[in-house]
Amino acid sequence: MTIQDLNGHTASQMSLEESLYKQVALRIAELIEHGTLRPGERVPSVRKCSQQQNVSISTVTQAYRLLEDRGVIEARPQSGYYVRMQRWSPPPEPEMSRPALRPVSLRVSDLILEVVKAGRDPNLVRLGATLPSPELFPIKELNRTMASVSRRAPLSVHSYDVPPGNHSLRVQVARRAMEAGCILSPDDIITTVGATEGMNLCLRAVAKPGDIIAIESPTFFNILHIIESLGMRVCEIPTYPREGICLDELEARLNCCRIKACVFTLNYSNPLGSCMPDHKKKKLVEILSSRKIPLIEDDIYGNLTFGATRPKVAKAYDQDGWVLLCDSFTKTLSPGSRVGWVAPGRFKARLEFLKFVNTSATASLPQMAVAEFLQNGGFDHHLRKIRRLYAMQMQRTSEAITRYFPEGTKITRPSGGMCLWVEMPPEVKAMNLYHQALAAKIGIAPGPIFSAKQKFENFIRINCGNPWSDKIDNAIRKLGEIVRENVCAPERQRADIR
Amino acid sequence: MTIQDLNGHTASQMSLEESLYKQVALRIAELIEHGTLRPGERVPSVRKCSQQQNVSISTVTQAYRLLEDRGVIEARPQSGYYVRMQRWSPPPEPEMSRPALRPVSLRVSDLILEVVKAGRDPNLVRLGATLPSPELFPIKELNRTMASVSRRAPLSVHSYDVPPGNHSLRVQVARRAMEAGCILSPDDIITTVGATEGMNLCLRAVAKPGDIIAIESPTFFNILHIIESLGMRVCEIPTYPREGICLDELEARLNCCRIKACVFTLNYSNPLGSCMPDHKKKKLVEILSSRKIPLIEDDIYGNLTFGATRPKVAKAYDQDGWVLLCDSFTKTLSPGSRVGWVAPGRFKARLEFLKFVNTSATASLPQMAVAEFLQNGGFDHHLRKIRRLYAMQMQRTSEAITRYFPEGTKITRPSGGMCLWVEMPPEVKAMNLYHQALAAKIGIAPGPIFSAKQKFENFIRINCGNPWSDKIDNAIRKLGEIVRENVCAPERQRADIR
Repeated sequence: MTIQDLNGHTASQMSLEESLYKQVALRIAELIEHGTLRPGERVPSVRKCSQQQNVSISTVTQAYRLLEDRGVIEARPQSGYYVRMQRWSPPPEPEMSRPALRPVSLRVSDLILEVVKAGRDPNLVRLGATLPSPELFPIKELNRTMASVSRRAPLSVHSYDVPPGNHSLRVQVARRAMEAGCILSPDDIITTVGATEGMNLCLRAVAKPGDIIAIESPTFFNILHIIESLGMRVCEIPTYPREGICLDELEARLNCCRIKACVFTLNYSNPLGSCMPDHKKKKLVEILSSRKIPLIEDDIYGNLTFGATRPKVAKAYDQDGWVLLCDSFTKTLSPGSRVGWVAPGRFKARLEFLKFVNTSATASLPQMAVAEFLQNGGFDHHLRKIRRLYAMQMQRTSEAITRYFPEGTKITRPSGGMCLWVEMPPEVKAMNLYHQALAAKIGIAPGPIFSAKQKFENFIRINCGNPWSDKIDNAIRKLGEIVRENVCAPERQRADIR
Repeated sequence: MTIQDLNGHTASQMSLEESLYKQVALRIAELIEHGTLRPGERVPSVRKCSQQQNVSISTVTQAYRLLEDRGVIEARPQSGYYVRMQRWSPPPEPEMSRPALRPVSLRVSDLILEVVKAGRDPNLVRLGATLPSPELFPIKELNRTMASVSRRAPLSVHSYDVPPGNHSLRVQVARRAMEAGCILSPDDIITTVGATEGMNLCLRAVAKPGDIIAIESPTFFNILHIIESLGMRVCEIPTYPREGICLDELEARLNCCRIKACVFTLNYSNPLGSCMPDHKKKKLVEILSSRKIPLIEDDIYGNLTFGATRPKVAKAYDQDGWVLLCDSFTKTLSPGSRVGWVAPGRFKARLEFLKFVNTSATASLPQMAVAEFLQNGGFDHHLRKIRRLYAMQMQRTSEAITRYFPEGTKITRPSGGMCLWVEMPPEVKAMNLYHQALAAKIGIAPGPIFSAKQKFENFIRINCGNPWSDKIDNAIRKLGEIVRENVCAPERQRADIR
């Protein structure tokens, strides 16, 4: 384990405190790596370690928590921390996708709707939808904020917040955008009903029915849905599971088909979890801006980084307003509040018109409550908490899949977000698996719904948005059993024939 | 004055109590009509009238309030009620509109947006936008309901209410629909972000870019906006100011152009205030259903009747699911909550898909709060109050226009809603007037924004959604002066030339 593994950033980017506890964690990790501490052995107590390393108790506590999240050590009640018995060696990752070259019209909505609706059954173990568990939202604090906002501004919560939308919220969004490398003014921003409305408006602003939109492969099925509903076509771009779309392949397609716009999720894409390095984002914006092709950037997972600082957005490199950045608070604060926003660059006037025409305004109270929550620091506090939790949940889920799924399974290694993309042996058909899992009360998202042509037939997406529990562990074990049966089944069938 | 004038309904439809106080009001009105009580004279005190007519004090109070709202008598502080000095004799009404026969593509959005944005200036006397004044919403009660809902269901207010939307709200909406003559089940209903999203989804469900949509003439500019943004064309139908679209003219146009769908506001249309009689609604639905043409019915003003019971909706006569009914609570309860709904008949599946794709879900807390407010009877109580207020405000506004505007002015006589449509002498150009009024800090809506071809050049729409005040009276007087100047101006110009 290296410092890079622990945080994905160089020490210079970290705060002093952060760098300190990570150094402590690294030393312990090295002791384990070198065999000084062996699996099953007790690591020094927090107090002892604090004396040995000459750091505070709280620094050691943070270091041990980090090691626990990474699956290096485990806490045993009233006994202390122990080196975990089985060090996890990750399975291989899937390779770059290879979608067809030709643009296609979409006819995927029936299949997607069927999966989405089935996934809502409250009796399922929800490994399908990327819906974080309600416990992972700051419910109490948000409700307190809503109550105080309604008391202080009883009329405003019932008045229209006409486009561009609530001013305080736009101020807060502009301030936060600096962390993603963006210089935005409140006037550059339009609030929307979640990122979903934002994506709709952006697509309608830059393209017409019949136009070709470049997307990642695989891509989030709601993006396919929206593009289909607007009568546009797609061109899928080969995408790496770690770094996102292949820029060379994108350029090749830009040269051969008339791509009108791109819709990419560059930070922790869904379902791949890929995160495009910042220098590649810069290059991407240069390629597209020079051709005057708008980039619709969906950044709803950008804040859910597992590292110390969040990655930049492509919008940070946007000189001429060709990037339309969409974001929302539905994955981090409150799905039910439906508060999102768009920074549409040179398409501002058109976006504002379309927003007014599409829904007149976004609901006022949710916007006001989110603005207040951002202003009083509640959001940052909450983000620190859930980043740690999501990292841990994803680690545990990856380990469980490694343990229970058959040989030949590949999984992605996202450094943020909440999705794992799992490639199973080629004989496993995700649609069959999906139905078998549903019968066993387990929800999963089958690979074909993430593709224009229903490819990724042996892939599934697993949601890590729920706190780790025995129930989830059992569900993944059960899922592994079903996958194994599917792997064995063809052989058995051959045996039956003999 | 007849009982018909007082309530627009026969006695059999009224509650006993209502019929009683209306009879009392009628007797007093007759005394005035016959000259027994003359302008400026005191009417019998409430106590005396109660003894004379052998009814309760409260019945007389209600009767006097009704007469006051209708401008027949007026209260003088610490003195009692007096017959008003100037009995109001209404000016003539505008005639049926005569739009061009040909369908047209729309290019109206720039003008509309300009007017809408200018109208938001908080320093204006707002006679333009149909935005009811915040005092006319049950703010305190709604905020109390919101607080109690968040306390009781803290998780639900942050969870997605995925389409078709909040179940309790759909139950309440279905119950209330009975009053409009509709038998709906909660499963027939999809909640939306105001009626605006509803209209968008309905149009997208039944028509494609380039298709022709029949609309009223004049029609609400947001409908023009939506149709333009979807790339559809319109065919404007001649419309009576009292009874709505002319069915013969509609049939003639159905025979000569390929109308794909109709968008009509049958109850208290905006800006005409027309209300189609129920038997004509039945006929309209028969005409359209027999041709399998969908009718998108916008009923956002239907609850704002000045009579004892609200008019039916066309949906009440819908046998085969060709009517898509859109409604919202933004004009009656809370603009900022953005809670609306659609009953899309046979297009349910398509609508649900489009809702999911357009905004994923409607904000949860506003839906839950409105549902609770409907359930506990708060809405009915509130409706009774605002119906009386709107009737009074519209009466006062009509009187003021009659008083201050020049000879030759015509105004509509709506029996519900909050809009007056004012036709001025032909030499008055509404766009000029609009700019002159804006300079005098008065907002009005100029006629051309209600038409595909910017017709209605000498018409304006006046919003009666604000409590009557001296400020409004002064604004209308000032407006009247400007109109008079515009009438005189051509003559003066001629005089200058001589």
